[in-house]
Amino acid sequence: MDVISLDPRTGDALGSVAEETSPAALDALCAAAVLAAKELAALRRSGRAAMLRSMAEALEERRGRLIEVADRETALGEARLSNELTRTQYQLRLFAEVLEEGSYLEAIIDHAGPTPMGPRPDLRRILRPIGPVAVFGASNFPFAFSVPGGDTASALAAGCAVIAKAHPLHPATSLLAQEALLSGARAAGLAATPVGLVFGQEAGGALVMHPAIQAVGFTGSLEVGRLLADAAASRPAPIPFYGELGALNAVVVCASAAAARHEEVAAGLVASFTLGVGQFCTKPGIVLLPAGRAGAALLDDLGAAARSVPSAVMLGEGIAQRFRARSGEIAQAPGIRVRARGEESQQDTGSSGLPLLVEAEGIEAITGLLLEECFGPLLVAVTYGDRDELVAILDRLGPALTATVHADPADHDGASSLLDLLAAKVGRVIWNGYPTGVAVTWAMQHGGPYPATTNPLHTSVGMTSIRRWLRPVAYQGVPEALLPAELRDAPEPQSVVPRRVDGKLELPAEEP
Amino acid sequence: MDVISLDPRTGDALGSVAEETSPAALDALCAAAVLAAKELAALRRSGRAAMLRSMAEALEERRGRLIEVADRETALGEARLSNELTRTQYQLRLFAEVLEEGSYLEAIIDHAGPTPMGPRPDLRRILRPIGPVAVFGASNFPFAFSVPGGDTASALAAGCAVIAKAHPLHPATSLLAQEALLSGARAAGLAATPVGLVFGQEAGGALVMHPAIQAVGFTGSLEVGRLLADAAASRPAPIPFYGELGALNAVVVCASAAAARHEEVAAGLVASFTLGVGQFCTKPGIVLLPAGRAGAALLDDLGAAARSVPSAVMLGEGIAQRFRARSGEIAQAPGIRVRARGEESQQDTGSSGLPLLVEAEGIEAITGLLLEECFGPLLVAVTYGDRDELVAILDRLGPALTATVHADPADHDGASSLLDLLAAKVGRVIWNGYPTGVAVTWAMQHGGPYPATTNPLHTSVGMTSIRRWLRPVAYQGVPEALLPAELRDAPEPQSVVPRRVDGKLELPAEEP
Repeated sequence: MDVISLDPRTGDALGSVAEETSPAALDALCAAAVLAAKELAALRRSGRAAMLRSMAEALEERRGRLIEVADRETALGEARLSNELTRTQYQLRLFAEVLEEGSYLEAIIDHAGPTPMGPRPDLRRILRPIGPVAVFGASNFPFAFSVPGGDTASALAAGCAVIAKAHPLHPATSLLAQEALLSGARAAGLAATPVGLVFGQEAGGALVMHPAIQAVGFTGSLEVGRLLADAAASRPAPIPFYGELGALNAVVVCASAAAARHEEVAAGLVASFTLGVGQFCTKPGIVLLPAGRAGAALLDDLGAAARSVPSAVMLGEGIAQRFRARSGEIAQAPGIRVRARGEESQQDTGSSGLPLLVEAEGIEAITGLLLEECFGPLLVAVTYGDRDELVAILDRLGPALTATVHADPADHDGASSLLDLLAAKVGRVIWNGYPTGVAVTWAMQHGGPYPATTNPLHTSVGMTSIRRWLRPVAYQGVPEALLPAELRDAPEPQSVVPRRVDGKLELPAEEP
Repeated sequence: MDVISLDPRTGDALGSVAEETSPAALDALCAAAVLAAKELAALRRSGRAAMLRSMAEALEERRGRLIEVADRETALGEARLSNELTRTQYQLRLFAEVLEEGSYLEAIIDHAGPTPMGPRPDLRRILRPIGPVAVFGASNFPFAFSVPGGDTASALAAGCAVIAKAHPLHPATSLLAQEALLSGARAAGLAATPVGLVFGQEAGGALVMHPAIQAVGFTGSLEVGRLLADAAASRPAPIPFYGELGALNAVVVCASAAAARHEEVAAGLVASFTLGVGQFCTKPGIVLLPAGRAGAALLDDLGAAARSVPSAVMLGEGIAQRFRARSGEIAQAPGIRVRARGEESQQDTGSSGLPLLVEAEGIEAITGLLLEECFGPLLVAVTYGDRDELVAILDRLGPALTATVHADPADHDGASSLLDLLAAKVGRVIWNGYPTGVAVTWAMQHGGPYPATTNPLHTSVGMTSIRRWLRPVAYQGVPEALLPAELRDAPEPQSVVPRRVDGKLELPAEEP
C-alpha cells in the first residue's frame, strides 16, 4: 500500500512517498543494521563523532528543501521548523563532543589485589552498544524528535545502528531526512547503512518484535506507546522500551507570586499552553491558583490573554478532530466552566485548533479526562484554598514530565517541601518559568514515572540520553593488548577518558 | 497458611516460621515502606551510610545463629555460609562508601547562559530514589543475594525502602536476617521500618503488582523471573524489573592452552562446575574444546577429575529432583555421551545431586535442553574443529552472564575478535579463569542480555548496581537555598561530590 503525504492546511494529498515496508524488506533492513553496527564499532569514538558532524552538515545542505517539505506536511511554519532543524544539527554535534570526552563509557578499572574478601581478580568495565535499535519519531517534531532527532543521534553516538519508523504525518520529511543522514554517513566514509527507514503501522509493529532489534525509542501518544511497550515486553527475548508518552504538566502559582505578577504569569502561561497550537508534550495542562483576589485576578488575566490567541492549523486533521472532541467533552463535564476561547480565524479548516481555558470548580471536578494529557491548546485552572488543598490536588495528579512553581520570596516557606513533593512525581521541576522549551544540555531530564515515560531511569533529551543504548561489560583478567582501548593501563592519547581506577575517579590531565 | 522451614539433609520439617502474608498485611507493609522512604531521604547520605554499617554490625552480632539456621535450611555448610555472611556485611559497608563518595548521584550543573540555540536556563540534575522496591532473594545465597543481600543494600543506599520476599527454601533465615537489619536500623536511630518481609507465593505476586512498589530486584529461575517480569510490565503503571535469571556460561579452550595446560584447566573447570553442587548462576555449563590430541586429553582429564567429586545435598528436594530429571534427560538425548559421573556418597538422600560430565557429539547435538541453564553439577563438553565451527557453536548459544576463554600467547591471533563476539552476548568475559566467584567491586558486571537478565543495562553485583534504584530529576531555575544540597553552587563540605559543571567533570579538591 502507498504511503501518502497530506497537507493539513488544505487536506490535500501531496502524493505517494513510498510503499509500506513488507516483512521481507524489514528483514533486509535489519540485516543491514547488523552489518552497520559492525562498521559503527570499527569507526571508534572519533570516527563516529566525525560521522555525526558530517550528518549535521548534510542536513544543512538540504535546509531549504527539508523545511519546505516539513512545513507542507505539518503546517508548523518556517520559523519554527528552521529553529528545529538547527536544534537537530546542534544535537548531533553535541553528541560528537560527548564521544570525544568519553566519560559516557563509564570506564572502571579494578586492579587485582587483596580485599577483605580475599584476592580479587583484575576487572575492567565499560559500556558497549546494545545492538541495532528502533526509533519511532513524533508527530510534533519532524526533525528534532524524529528520523534525524535526539534518539537517532544518541543511538548512533553509542554505536547502535538505527531503524526509524517514518511518522504517518510527515513521511516525505522522514525520507528526505534519512537521505541526508545517509549522505552524511557516506561523506564520512561509511559503506553500510547506519539509519534504515520503515513505513506503515504493521511494519512498525513488526520492527519492535524483530529479533535483530535490541531496544526501542519512542515519542508519541500514551495509547500507541503502551501498545508497543507491551509488545516489546512480550517478545521471546524482551527488550528495553524507552517511550516518552507526554504528560499533564501542572503549574502551581503561590499566593505572593500571584499577587505580585498575575499579569506576567498569565501572559507567560498562555503563551506556553498555546505555543505550537499546544502540541508539545511539555505543554502546561493544569494550573493551580491561590484562592482570593490575586488568584481571581490571575484567572481573569489568563482569560483575557487566551481570548486574543487565534486558532491555528494543527499537525493533521485526525489530531485536530481528537482535540476538538476531547476539549468539547471537558468543557461540558460537570463542575467545569469555560473561561475563555481563543479567536476563531477566518481561515479555519478541519485541521484547526482553538485555544480553550476552562475552570474546574473545586478538587472533585479534577477527574476522568482532566487527569490525562489533552494534546492541543487546552488549559485547566483550579483554585486551592490552602496548603492542604494544594497537596490534595497534587496528590490526584499522576506523574508527569514536568511540574512548575511560581513563587516569590514570601512564598519560600514550605517551598522546599513543595519542590520535594513535585520532584517525587516528575522528571523536571521548573521555578518561575514555563515547561515548554526543552534545552539540550547535560543536565536536562526529559522523562518521568509512568505515564510520562515507560522507563523512569532515563531521559530522551540531553547528553545523558546516550545511556539508553549502552550495556555494561566487564573484562576479567584480559591481557592489556586485548582490552578495549579505553580500559588499558597505558591507553593511547586518543583513548584517554575519565575513569574510576581502584575506586577513585580520575580525570585526564588538562592540556597545557 | 503456615510457612514451614525444611532440612534438605533429612527432609524433616524444622517448624513453622510465619504465616503467609495476607493482602491486608501487605498493604500495611507497603504503607510502612512509604513512611520509611521519607525517613531514609531525611537521613541524607551520611545517615544512610551509618545505617548500612550498623546493619552490618547487627548481622555480625547474630553470626552464629544466622549460620546455624541457614545451614539447617540450605545444607550449604558452615564454611561457605560464614564466607557469604562476611560478603554480605562487606557489601553493606561498601555501599556506605559509595554514599560518602557521592558520584552515584550523577550531579550535573548547567548554569544559565548563551548557547547556539539561544539562552539556556539554569538546569541541575541529580538522581533521586525511585520509591519503595521489592527484592526477591535467591535459593542459593541465603544472605548475599537474599533479604540482607546486594539488592537490599544497594536499594537502601539509594534511599529506597525495601520489601523483601522470603525464599521458601530459607524462610527462618530470612526472618532472622530481617530482624538483624531492623535492629541495625534502630541502633542507627531509625524509627520506621526500612525493610519489610513477605511470605508466600501469592503475597510475592501481589507485591510486584502493588501500586506502592516502584521497582523489583529478583534473583532466581528463568521461569519464575519471566512470570514476575511479565506481571511488572502488565501493571496499570509498569515498573522496572531487574531479574537475574541465570545462564549457560560457556568456556572456550583454545588449542595452545589445551596443549599446555589441560590438567590444570580440567581441575579448575571441574572445581568450578561442581562448586556448591553446581548451584551458581555463573556455573560453567558448556565447554568448547579444540579437536585433536590436546582437546582429547583435556576431556579425559575432565572425566577423571569429575569422577572423584562426591555427590552432595542440594538446597532442597525439589531442586535435586529437577536436577536429576533434567540431567537424566540430557544424558539420554541423541548425540550425547556420558563421560563421567561423580562418586555416589554413602549418605545420599532425596536431595542429593551427582556431578555429571557429558559430551555432545558435534554441533547438531547442541539443541533443546542443552541450550538452557541446568541448575546443578552438569557440564557439557563439545569439540570444535576449526575457528568457523567454534563461531558456529557460539552462535547457537544464547546470551549469558559470563563467557570464559582459556588461551595462551600462541592463541592470541584472533583472540581479540573472539572476545568481541563473546562480549556482544554476555556481561562478563573471563580470561584464563573460571566464572564462579563474583567479586564485589566497582567494575563488576553481573548481568547480560535476556535470558541472563531481564534488563541488560544494569548489574546486580558491584557498586554500580545502585543505579537501578535511582531516577534523574532536573531542577530548572530553582534558587540556591531550595536546591538539593549537592546541586548548590557553594555546597556545605559534607555535600561536596564529583559533578559535571557546564559540561566539565569536576572532582572535589583532594584533602591535604
